[in-house]
Amino acid sequence: MATTEAYELYYWPGIQGRGEPIRLAFEETGTPYVDVTRKPEAEGGGAAAIMRFIKGDAPGMIPLAPPFLRHGDLVVAQTANVLAYLAPRLGLVPDDEPSRLRANQLMLTIMDLIVEAHDVHHPIAPGLYYDDQKDEAMRTAPLFLRERMPKFLGYFERLLSRDGHLVSPALSYVDLAAFQVIEGLRYAFPKSMAAFEPRVPLLTALHEHVAARPRVAAYLASARRVRFNERGIFRNYPELDSAPDPEMRF
Amino acid sequence: MATTEAYELYYWPGIQGRGEPIRLAFEETGTPYVDVTRKPEAEGGGAAAIMRFIKGDAPGMIPLAPPFLRHGDLVVAQTANVLAYLAPRLGLVPDDEPSRLRANQLMLTIMDLIVEAHDVHHPIAPGLYYDDQKDEAMRTAPLFLRERMPKFLGYFERLLSRDGHLVSPALSYVDLAAFQVIEGLRYAFPKSMAAFEPRVPLLTALHEHVAARPRVAAYLASARRVRFNERGIFRNYPELDSAPDPEMRF
Repeated sequence: MATTEAYELYYWPGIQGRGEPIRLAFEETGTPYVDVTRKPEAEGGGAAAIMRFIKGDAPGMIPLAPPFLRHGDLVVAQTANVLAYLAPRLGLVPDDEPSRLRANQLMLTIMDLIVEAHDVHHPIAPGLYYDDQKDEAMRTAPLFLRERMPKFLGYFERLLSRDGHLVSPALSYVDLAAFQVIEGLRYAFPKSMAAFEPRVPLLTALHEHVAARPRVAAYLASARRVRFNERGIFRNYPELDSAPDPEMRF
Repeated sequence: MATTEAYELYYWPGIQGRGEPIRLAFEETGTPYVDVTRKPEAEGGGAAAIMRFIKGDAPGMIPLAPPFLRHGDLVVAQTANVLAYLAPRLGLVPDDEPSRLRANQLMLTIMDLIVEAHDVHHPIAPGLYYDDQKDEAMRTAPLFLRERMPKFLGYFERLLSRDGHLVSPALSYVDLAAFQVIEGLRYAFPKSMAAFEPRVPLLTALHEHVAARPRVAAYLASARRVRFNERGIFRNYPELDSAPDPEMRF
């Protein structure tokens, strides 16, 4: 039975990236999982473990890219899809269909924001280095910080002010993902976030609440958590972090 | 009961955009639906119908953006989420969980491709006009056409060669969405697609198969289908459509 098999997470080693919302779901619920690529290559780890699946040399659905989860015979890719599969099993989403639709909608919206945050430093092409598109990134960054980031974060703030939580009174995987986005944006754009966060106090409070969950706190302090760095989605390039912008829309 | 209520689709009038995969699901299955914004404003249509929901003046979940579906008391946003809700009801996805996970994974991958196709003409910011980011778009376009488009379409081709279909032997909503992406890419990049399509014959055949479905064919010929134009996701800017590129990767 698939449900008695280990959860195996496959994601590029060395970055949090799109794998991190999945790691947080495992960590918050104390669910055992194998972070496969962090094992040595000699033990089946490293990026080579991913390539077997992408090349179709492993059984199951072929993913285009990580993250993907292997659970028994199932291979499930795309962060939001992995979490839609895991969350009912880990108790991170209510049972009823409206709640699951709401959770999935918000998770997809968070993934949209993550794409845009990534594209701030890679506006031209994912295959070029940052230095080869830095001039364009300098155009993108202030527009992202003035218009897009406030639009997304302001949306989550509105939902919190109306409903007191993102999906239900209990913690959900969407709350964990929202925490992760705040973490990443603070790392990438510390000046802009310091200026903006007073406008989204409920979202900031949600971040603090998640950070203080005992298992999350233990995870964040552990060596299991990859540190933010300039190879991931959220990168701290000071030249892209505008000073507080009086035109920031909300 | 929600299931006896009409399906109401809300999407920006005048473009196919992220609403089109949903329209195709309704049209292929002969399911009655209301394309709300295409009604006159005096009858509750137009973009104003969308804004009521985004502003929170309508009951139900607040969407960040269209498309969204209203079905009874439910308001469901995000294209892939709307289709995950609709497809079981319309008979456009098998019942078993692995098939639904596969369908959702592929739909999310198609949406990723759609974002990248859009960002070819809007690499700097969605809030700027094309003319204000045309120089950057001229850098992005050849890289998209040489690396990204072949990566995505080649992936779908591989799945078709291994499995003969994208989700199951029966037509699924993912097949309809794949049709739409080919339609859009052909409109936006006719020269590049003419050069590339011989490398993805199974995907091209799937496109032809969908186009020939009687209800789809009738829809495509009808006034219900919005024409492609330079306000949507797929735009025909000839300067972005490279001549056939010998370096195109596959």
